[in-house]
Amino acid sequence: MILFHNDYSEGCHEKIMEALIATNMEQTPGYSEDRYCAAAADKIRKCCGREDLAVHFLVGGTQANLTGITAALWPHQGVLCADSGHVNTHETGAIEATGHRVLGLPSVHGKIRGQQVREYVKIHFADPSFEHTVQAGMVYISNPTEWGTLYSKAELEDLSSACRDCGLPLFLDGARLGYGLMAKQNDLTMADIALLCDVFYIGGTKVGALFGEAVVISNPVLARDFRYIMKQRGGMLAKGRLLGVQFDALLTDDLYFTISHHADQLAEQLRAKFQALGYDFFMPAQSNQLFPILPASVRVYLAEKYTFIEMDRLDENLTVCRFCTSWATKQENVDALCADLEKISE
Amino acid sequence: MILFHNDYSEGCHEKIMEALIATNMEQTPGYSEDRYCAAAADKIRKCCGREDLAVHFLVGGTQANLTGITAALWPHQGVLCADSGHVNTHETGAIEATGHRVLGLPSVHGKIRGQQVREYVKIHFADPSFEHTVQAGMVYISNPTEWGTLYSKAELEDLSSACRDCGLPLFLDGARLGYGLMAKQNDLTMADIALLCDVFYIGGTKVGALFGEAVVISNPVLARDFRYIMKQRGGMLAKGRLLGVQFDALLTDDLYFTISHHADQLAEQLRAKFQALGYDFFMPAQSNQLFPILPASVRVYLAEKYTFIEMDRLDENLTVCRFCTSWATKQENVDALCADLEKISE
Amino acid sequence: MILFHNDYSEGCHEKIMEALIATNMEQTPGYSEDRYCAAAADKIRKCCGREDLAVHFLVGGTQANLTGITAALWPHQGVLCADSGHVNTHETGAIEATGHRVLGLPSVHGKIRGQQVREYVKIHFADPSFEHTVQAGMVYISNPTEWGTLYSKAELEDLSSACRDCGLPLFLDGARLGYGLMAKQNDLTMADIALLCDVFYIGGTKVGALFGEAVVISNPVLARDFRYIMKQRGGMLAKGRLLGVQFDALLTDDLYFTISHHADQLAEQLRAKFQALGYDFFMPAQSNQLFPILPASVRVYLAEKYTFIEMDRLDENLTVCRFCTSWATKQENVDALCADLEKISE
Amino acid sequence: MILFHNDYSEGCHEKIMEALIATNMEQTPGYSEDRYCAAAADKIRKCCGREDLAVHFLVGGTQANLTGITAALWPHQGVLCADSGHVNTHETGAIEATGHRVLGLPSVHGKIRGQQVREYVKIHFADPSFEHTVQAGMVYISNPTEWGTLYSKAELEDLSSACRDCGLPLFLDGARLGYGLMAKQNDLTMADIALLCDVFYIGGTKVGALFGEAVVISNPVLARDFRYIMKQRGGMLAKGRLLGVQFDALLTDDLYFTISHHADQLAEQLRAKFQALGYDFFMPAQSNQLFPILPASVRVYLAEKYTFIEMDRLDENLTVCRFCTSWATKQENVDALCADLEKISE
Repeated sequence: MILFHNDYSEGCHEKIMEALIATNMEQTPGYSEDRYCAAAADKIRKCCGREDLAVHFLVGGTQANLTGITAALWPHQGVLCADSGHVNTHETGAIEATGHRVLGLPSVHGKIRGQQVREYVKIHFADPSFEHTVQAGMVYISNPTEWGTLYSKAELEDLSSACRDCGLPLFLDGARLGYGLMAKQNDLTMADIALLCDVFYIGGTKVGALFGEAVVISNPVLARDFRYIMKQRGGMLAKGRLLGVQFDALLTDDLYFTISHHADQLAEQLRAKFQALGYDFFMPAQSNQLFPILPASVRVYLAEKYTFIEMDRLDENLTVCRFCTSWATKQENVDALCADLEKISE
Repeated sequence: MILFHNDYSEGCHEKIMEALIATNMEQTPGYSEDRYCAAAADKIRKCCGREDLAVHFLVGGTQANLTGITAALWPHQGVLCADSGHVNTHETGAIEATGHRVLGLPSVHGKIRGQQVREYVKIHFADPSFEHTVQAGMVYISNPTEWGTLYSKAELEDLSSACRDCGLPLFLDGARLGYGLMAKQNDLTMADIALLCDVFYIGGTKVGALFGEAVVISNPVLARDFRYIMKQRGGMLAKGRLLGVQFDALLTDDLYFTISHHADQLAEQLRAKFQALGYDFFMPAQSNQLFPILPASVRVYLAEKYTFIEMDRLDENLTVCRFCTSWATKQENVDALCADLEKISE
Repeated sequence: MILFHNDYSEGCHEKIMEALIATNMEQTPGYSEDRYCAAAADKIRKCCGREDLAVHFLVGGTQANLTGITAALWPHQGVLCADSGHVNTHETGAIEATGHRVLGLPSVHGKIRGQQVREYVKIHFADPSFEHTVQAGMVYISNPTEWGTLYSKAELEDLSSACRDCGLPLFLDGARLGYGLMAKQNDLTMADIALLCDVFYIGGTKVGALFGEAVVISNPVLARDFRYIMKQRGGMLAKGRLLGVQFDALLTDDLYFTISHHADQLAEQLRAKFQALGYDFFMPAQSNQLFPILPASVRVYLAEKYTFIEMDRLDENLTVCRFCTSWATKQENVDALCADLEKISE
Repeated sequence: MILFHNDYSEGCHEKIMEALIATNMEQTPGYSEDRYCAAAADKIRKCCGREDLAVHFLVGGTQANLTGITAALWPHQGVLCADSGHVNTHETGAIEATGHRVLGLPSVHGKIRGQQVREYVKIHFADPSFEHTVQAGMVYISNPTEWGTLYSKAELEDLSSACRDCGLPLFLDGARLGYGLMAKQNDLTMADIALLCDVFYIGGTKVGALFGEAVVISNPVLARDFRYIMKQRGGMLAKGRLLGVQFDALLTDDLYFTISHHADQLAEQLRAKFQALGYDFFMPAQSNQLFPILPASVRVYLAEKYTFIEMDRLDENLTVCRFCTSWATKQENVDALCADLEKISE
């Protein structure tokens, strides 16, 4: 079987493995207080064009989400997000387990707009019994979204401006950030994101690392005592240097961007093939996740050789499917999938 | 500087690195549903001599503690432990963050006895207003303890029996389990532990792995839905196979035990040297952590070349210090430390 | 101003006040361990036709909801309810603050059906990654609902049967239970409810008492250690006998039912008047809460003399309003409102 | 039996009952947004000599403690208190259930000193791994303490000054505040307390009311959004005016102080009698709770007619007992107890 169902089926990029091997028997202090973490943080700050960012390394996305969100909210506050947001759909109530409600907003293409945030806040405070409902305390978005779509710079500016007007910090889940930044239609830079968000993370798990997410905090209120909360929620890695070494490698010679670009290009080939053969997409195909709508015959045929996710059955025949490429996807596997697709579509 | 202050200063054992390299580009399902996790779980079951154990892999110790404890407790219950227990001292209130009190009991050499558990429960229910105090719902111990000491088989049987009489599941934190099982004075096997405890974990982070703890659950009530709680608390690793690969390697050809033995032997050399030179120990030296009491002159002298932890200042002159060996400690470094110790003690 | 906006604008029924006065200087044990609480619990058991019910007294509805729900759920579970359910809309995330998600289901007339519960559970376990989503652990309904509507016996049987098939305890919020049981269209008895639900409560705050809800638990698993959780969540009243005295009075000579009937009758008069004058209702008018749709002219006119709640603006002109009657509503006030309504509707 | 085991065995003072009766059928808005709550809050502000205090009314002490503490703490913080503090001993882990550790400090006569707070904070931040331990975020004291003792003005100033230097808000649990303020040895006023603490409450439940605690907040950061947290934790009373009416009555014509004085005087008679007969006290007898050490013969004899609490068995013969007087204690009952005491002591 060739796996296209997600973007974390392999280990890590060879350069990262080399870095891990090279540093393996070195002795370093624990808990990310080593020189590799420091170096990686510096490179991230440089990449964002700012010296004043707090950078912390966590092992995974749910951990990054729950740590970052609980660090920001007062007890009576919840987090606004797209109804399709990962914290709202696939984290087993991780945010609720920290005591906070997830406030899902209707989304288009997995995205929300500044106007929705402004309205939520306005309606909340217009209710004479507002203290009986959950106050918004943060806004969470993902870029790329869970549907593989992208926020344009204008959209992120609009959302950021709404958040600042409403006094709500903006959190950007960048589990697939590289695939977003290297996408053809993208017009955002990491510096833009650091400027427009209060906290975001640079996903490593899905973009070349064995594991790891680099949390970047520009809002000093959210940065306060962040390491305590990491430790308390089980997110402080003893051998923290493993995170530093990996992000240091990812940010050397643009590795993060180069390998992201690779995934995006292969996704683009796949997208073009699906389109050329007349298949519709459930969502605009903008980064490394594609959501073509496939008839049963095609779906069953492909499932013999390839894994992909069946997201939603639209009718007796049609199913929304998810195919992912990644830093590790081989050209030959994309070629094979394209060829098989062509064959069954004849 | 040569680091003796903890047992997680290096990366991983070469055999583990080799296994990670060999499997790196293999495609596997995520979230520990791969064949490496299955194989490692099987080896653990074999090692415990039982087929009916649930095995789950987590990244770190605090995560294993908070996940295992919150999975066992009802909302009004707390966890009994030695006052020196890790969950009571060095996890930033991770257990409290899940809503439960840590009920510290006075300990001798970092250990508690069955009688203390029985008495706590008896006193609790003898209080006419018992509902106004926290009910015990689990007992947590560490073996080796945070003070490097060991539970004998008789002690663990005594505690286990008390726990069962009181209806309290017993949780054993085995962050350094290998160093305990290979210690000269140890008379416990992994099978004993699986039999006497309801849940325990086999520490990898401190014993040869890059990271990872294998949680072993013999009590089916605690095993129920454990993966949900792992996910909810941020402990489900996307590339879970990294844990499987590492534990598979650790449990092949007795690697886990061989490298633990190495650390214990070096600790024994150090212990003998401290003792021969007339230094007292704050705690019986039984595994890879030693707690000698050092005068200021010695402490300052050693601190120039070696790292170790100053646990407690006893008076103007004397300080309890912690020195750790590990699977990675080099004979030459122990020799150097012994030589310097001799020099300053002349 | 005459208040129709809720059913808790006055103190308590005179019989209850008399009982409070009569017992005021009596000395009793605290925390509901007095003879009044015992007597009230007995009367409730009798009213339900069962000896095996646990009965506990709490001060208010949010407290009863959060205590009863947190006592039933495992950490990774959430509570299913109508999207209009009180725990989902007006309790400031009280359930989430105990660590659990509220799982709102689409509702018709504020009610959910057994089929929805069955489907939620089926879909959950059909998802191969079900551990990444919140498991249902309880079902919460209100009767009467937040929209004043009633579950028929057939509907409650259907829901109860689905819950039992799915292994989910059923919780019934009876904040306005009396008004439901005395409603013209009702075909449920308190004994039916005790049989069909695992836990429910008999609302006092809105039905004649100064405050108080009597939680009735028929499922022994949920009854276990309930007083601990009451205390822990701040719900154990020092002078618990105040709750016992009030419920004892409410359950003497059918007071609870008589005064509920009074409210329902006045609501029926109001309903008939609205209908006769041609106003539509947003929800079927079945108990003491009415939701007529009023044009702006009528709404503004009435607002000069009466309070009521504006629930939702339907268009430029029409607004859904809430009017409540209660045990304390005076016939003359209903007459006045009817007269004014007639006047403005001419 | 005559009850001396606590100070909440009766209902309420007749003046309060009269006020409840007088206002019973009045219609008011709910949730403490009525004129009685406003009037009571004004009287409290006047009594404290300050216009800028936020005042909120809650039903009971545990509720007031958990609401006030959770409103102040960041997720990784705990609350410092005397090891004998109510939140540490008799609230079933209510603080932990909000996610926070209770940090008990050794106490003398139930009290802690500023120096202890300073040292805790200093030691915490001196630890190089401080992020692995719980940060203090608030200081909780009770006055009178759980042992009936009092903070002098100098002691409270010392503690307050330490708290402010350390950036820790000071919370004073005044469940028995009246009995403290009217005690012979007291030199504090309510204005002093409002000045020296960031938040405190005036206990009603134990001092003349049916129930109720008035939370007074002088620190605007803690006052922010307090009503949300009240609601979320189940502490917002629907008929909030019941709390307003009671506190309004308590603060009219010095009722609160007069009835507190009554209790203190009766306690003083009892104290003098115990002392005259040669019994020792376990704690200095300073307010309405007395802790004489009684031999078995006396204890058994008194237990036939009177209730009191056996706190601690000191040896085969001697037991620390608790006797309380209250606003409701009758002179004749104290006389009877004194007479019986004399009889058995002959």
